[in-house]
Amino acid sequence: MIQRYKIIIEYDGTTLLGWQKQQDGKSVQEFLEKAIYSFCQEDIEVYGAGRTDAGVHALAQVAHFDLQKEVDVFRLQEALNAHLRAMEAPVAVLSAQKVGSDFHARYSAKGRSYLYRITTRRAPLIIDKNRSWLVVVPLDVKKMREGAKYLIGYHDFSSFRAVKCQAKTPLKTLDKLEIIEEKENIIFYVEARSFLHHQVRNMVGTLKMVGDGHLSPEDIKTILEAKDRRRAGPTAPACGLYLKEIMY
Amino acid sequence: MIQRYKIIIEYDGTTLLGWQKQQDGKSVQEFLEKAIYSFCQEDIEVYGAGRTDAGVHALAQVAHFDLQKEVDVFRLQEALNAHLRAMEAPVAVLSAQKVGSDFHARYSAKGRSYLYRITTRRAPLIIDKNRSWLVVVPLDVKKMREGAKYLIGYHDFSSFRAVKCQAKTPLKTLDKLEIIEEKENIIFYVEARSFLHHQVRNMVGTLKMVGDGHLSPEDIKTILEAKDRRRAGPTAPACGLYLKEIMY
Repeated sequence: MIQRYKIIIEYDGTTLLGWQKQQDGKSVQEFLEKAIYSFCQEDIEVYGAGRTDAGVHALAQVAHFDLQKEVDVFRLQEALNAHLRAMEAPVAVLSAQKVGSDFHARYSAKGRSYLYRITTRRAPLIIDKNRSWLVVVPLDVKKMREGAKYLIGYHDFSSFRAVKCQAKTPLKTLDKLEIIEEKENIIFYVEARSFLHHQVRNMVGTLKMVGDGHLSPEDIKTILEAKDRRRAGPTAPACGLYLKEIMY
Repeated sequence: MIQRYKIIIEYDGTTLLGWQKQQDGKSVQEFLEKAIYSFCQEDIEVYGAGRTDAGVHALAQVAHFDLQKEVDVFRLQEALNAHLRAMEAPVAVLSAQKVGSDFHARYSAKGRSYLYRITTRRAPLIIDKNRSWLVVVPLDVKKMREGAKYLIGYHDFSSFRAVKCQAKTPLKTLDKLEIIEEKENIIFYVEARSFLHHQVRNMVGTLKMVGDGHLSPEDIKTILEAKDRRRAGPTAPACGLYLKEIMY
């Protein structure tokens, strides 16, 4: 009897090529599939809720997979973590549970949230190296919030969509875009049913230009309406992005 | 004319032997002295406010040094950071200022504060690897707070003092010991004029035993009064400790 398992995973994207298996290099999917094989000698595929890019972190990515045998979920979690550690994978399984065969990590998801973190200071990042985007000029958070308001809701996000994005439509609903200031850190919290490729990093890269004065808050409206990737700012670096939660 | 400079420094202690110069291995002091030499070819000694151990981090260590020539402090900070980065030192200078020759990073200090961070969960730490002490059992924070109360104030801290501690007296005043819970994290905030060697880590290692039920809160009183290092718990790992602030 086949049993489906849902796992929640944390990873440090710094040395990874991303979620998806690649010809050369380390991916979360490959590490997990190897750990599962080491645990029960089943050569199966792991399906993730969101395919994060190289360098992007996850606080709680969700994945599912099927095993021929039924195993205790606590033992599964502990064994996978032991095998991941043995491979020196920057990946850990935070929880594991049995789910019905109708559950699909990607297609059952009703929402996704991401954090993006910027640190504004002159000195290089040390404790938070590879954990935040270092911006060496001050940013006007109030203006960034004004600009962000234009992005909330149902829009054609073509201006914030990666050229190689494979989504069927650029029409998406952005449910939340909050910007919180904590000492030298600026945290973006975004939530939507789904995102276009690079959408979060392109929004942050453009809002940063509002913060440093290169754009006005109103320019965000113009850029959005242009539906042209060339009008928006650069893609913010991967190291500041964290997949925070998948909602079902 | 000799000019004294005060700098505030952040470092990641993971790969360091600590603050102090050592025969073999990397120290913050040595990295800073090399960076200063690269900047102005002056072979001088850097004095730190607190001599942190191997593996211990600093959010804002303070140090001073004297240069034969007067230099612009912004240029000094930028140049030192460039040289530190070139050496791949996990150290950054957060600020630099000119001070009078009566200022001494260590002897002028009126207080020191440290953070100690514990994360309680089963899964290995990934994003916070080397940034927190992973404890895989739940801890009773309320009981730890009860135990901590006995440590606050003027006491003989011999029970929490490293054997190799060189302080003249084990009598110290602990001004603050607060324990804050944030999701799976437990943060200890301690403040005193000065600490004995390993005092913070020994207090945390012992309070952790109150949290996991091996000791009662009242045992902390008995241990303190015993003035015997063998009565207290083990030294908590260095990776959870952060020198937070030096007060002048």
